[in-house]
Amino acid sequence: MAGWAKHLAGIKGVVLDISGVLYDSGGEGGGVPIPGSIEAVKKIKTSGLKLRFCTNETQATREKFVEKLQRLGFDIAVNEVTAPAPAACLILKERNLRPHLLVHDDVIPEFADVDKANPNCVVVGDAADNFSYKNLNETFRVLIGLENPVLISLGKGRYYKETDGLKLDVGVYMKALEYACDIQAEVVGKPAKMFFQSALREMGVEPHQAIMIGDDIVNDVGGAQQCGMKALQVRTGKYSWSFLYKGTERKTLVRPCDEQHPKVKADGYVDNLAEAVDVILKQLCE
Amino acid sequence: MAGWAKHLAGIKGVVLDISGVLYDSGGEGGGVPIPGSIEAVKKIKTSGLKLRFCTNETQATREKFVEKLQRLGFDIAVNEVTAPAPAACLILKERNLRPHLLVHDDVIPEFADVDKANPNCVVVGDAADNFSYKNLNETFRVLIGLENPVLISLGKGRYYKETDGLKLDVGVYMKALEYACDIQAEVVGKPAKMFFQSALREMGVEPHQAIMIGDDIVNDVGGAQQCGMKALQVRTGKYSWSFLYKGTERKTLVRPCDEQHPKVKADGYVDNLAEAVDVILKQLCE
Repeated sequence: MAGWAKHLAGIKGVVLDISGVLYDSGGEGGGVPIPGSIEAVKKIKTSGLKLRFCTNETQATREKFVEKLQRLGFDIAVNEVTAPAPAACLILKERNLRPHLLVHDDVIPEFADVDKANPNCVVVGDAADNFSYKNLNETFRVLIGLENPVLISLGKGRYYKETDGLKLDVGVYMKALEYACDIQAEVVGKPAKMFFQSALREMGVEPHQAIMIGDDIVNDVGGAQQCGMKALQVRTGKYSWSFLYKGTERKTLVRPCDEQHPKVKADGYVDNLAEAVDVILKQLCE
Repeated sequence: MAGWAKHLAGIKGVVLDISGVLYDSGGEGGGVPIPGSIEAVKKIKTSGLKLRFCTNETQATREKFVEKLQRLGFDIAVNEVTAPAPAACLILKERNLRPHLLVHDDVIPEFADVDKANPNCVVVGDAADNFSYKNLNETFRVLIGLENPVLISLGKGRYYKETDGLKLDVGVYMKALEYACDIQAEVVGKPAKMFFQSALREMGVEPHQAIMIGDDIVNDVGGAQQCGMKALQVRTGKYSWSFLYKGTERKTLVRPCDEQHPKVKADGYVDNLAEAVDVILKQLCE
């Protein structure tokens, strides 16, 4: 039995990160399932454990994202997914905020019902190629021109892994705008406590009854733990990568740092989701 | 007499920032002289005071930059200008660093004599439209793949003013890369102490004998003061601006914050370079 299995007493719900845990995104077809993950999701669903998917994905609407995952073979539905864009829309409406959007084209439909005229805040998501100098500069001008600049960031990740290598994530551009305007962003999405709490509410379980499984030590593991949940880190996704430099495979690195992160320590480390689920289910049957 | 004129006793040299003090960059012809600045430079040159231009401009070689300023009417020569790219080249050679460059196309000739094969560091300058997602991501991959990641930034400015509005400066992208890779950049250019010291060495004056005139409270004023110089802030350049939002003139703001900066206080504030030079020369004649 894995040493961390002792933390599993009383667990009633599992929260899964998607990118880097279920699949690696990118390339033709939009990504590749991580071996064993499709079956692992099925096993959780038949076990009687509650299940919720909690993603910082903001390159598509939840509908399109879930369609892709279904195409890849996953048993997943839109109403099982907690994602930053719908969470941000609730906040915008509550606070009468009219956003200037710096986001991926494919996530714009999530903001269809939000008033965007005469903006009084900025929302930044994982805009990928939309992070041009022109677009970032336009966003900066809006933000620095506001009497009370509000910057809402859909996550604060540094980077993620696609099939062709690492990609800069929204957090990097959040930091860029924070520095440019000398302000602090409000983060919607992992690792924000409210975001995990909303996922738990949807599942109907208490924080101490839930376990998070993710590949990001800060956003998945640290965020869940701060909310009172247990958390496992998988050694897939951004945990290791190979990357291309000017068209040539240069080197393959395994990041040694995450298991020695200065501030965050996972309750357990597993090679992949399949291993995590096997240990969890075995423990529950004992 | 301006209250700050008391600080002028013993002054033998003047260091001038260029963009926002001599001229506003951008638009046809590359910019517009700030009224009175062409004459102010002439007056310093005939006064017997030493003069040095100290810029963080990295969108062109020193040669091209000086040609533009001469075309605009300024009495300025290449060997009177201290600029970050030549300073960085010296550091690269001293430390056997081979840079991956993320810079403006027009400054690349400054790095002609530097070995750039198989990079072991990154140099980032004010790349403007070259700050695409693709280019920043490629730079990130080089940097995070290095065993000992070295990031050299040609300045750390937040933004500057062009004739059509504010533009994001290199510091914003430096912060983005710092966050992505969890590292600290080394700054060449203002406000680095070594950069001001090199300008003073060229003039042959001691720090306490020199006065800096700039529009940036942190990079010009703060940097010069930390080096032991006096420093004036002009109310031109980025000090105030109007900006365009989606093609419509939206509002004009005067930034109230700089004269109440929490950490840096200039030795004096003047409306423009012409006023500064008149006070300095009057004081020296008394």
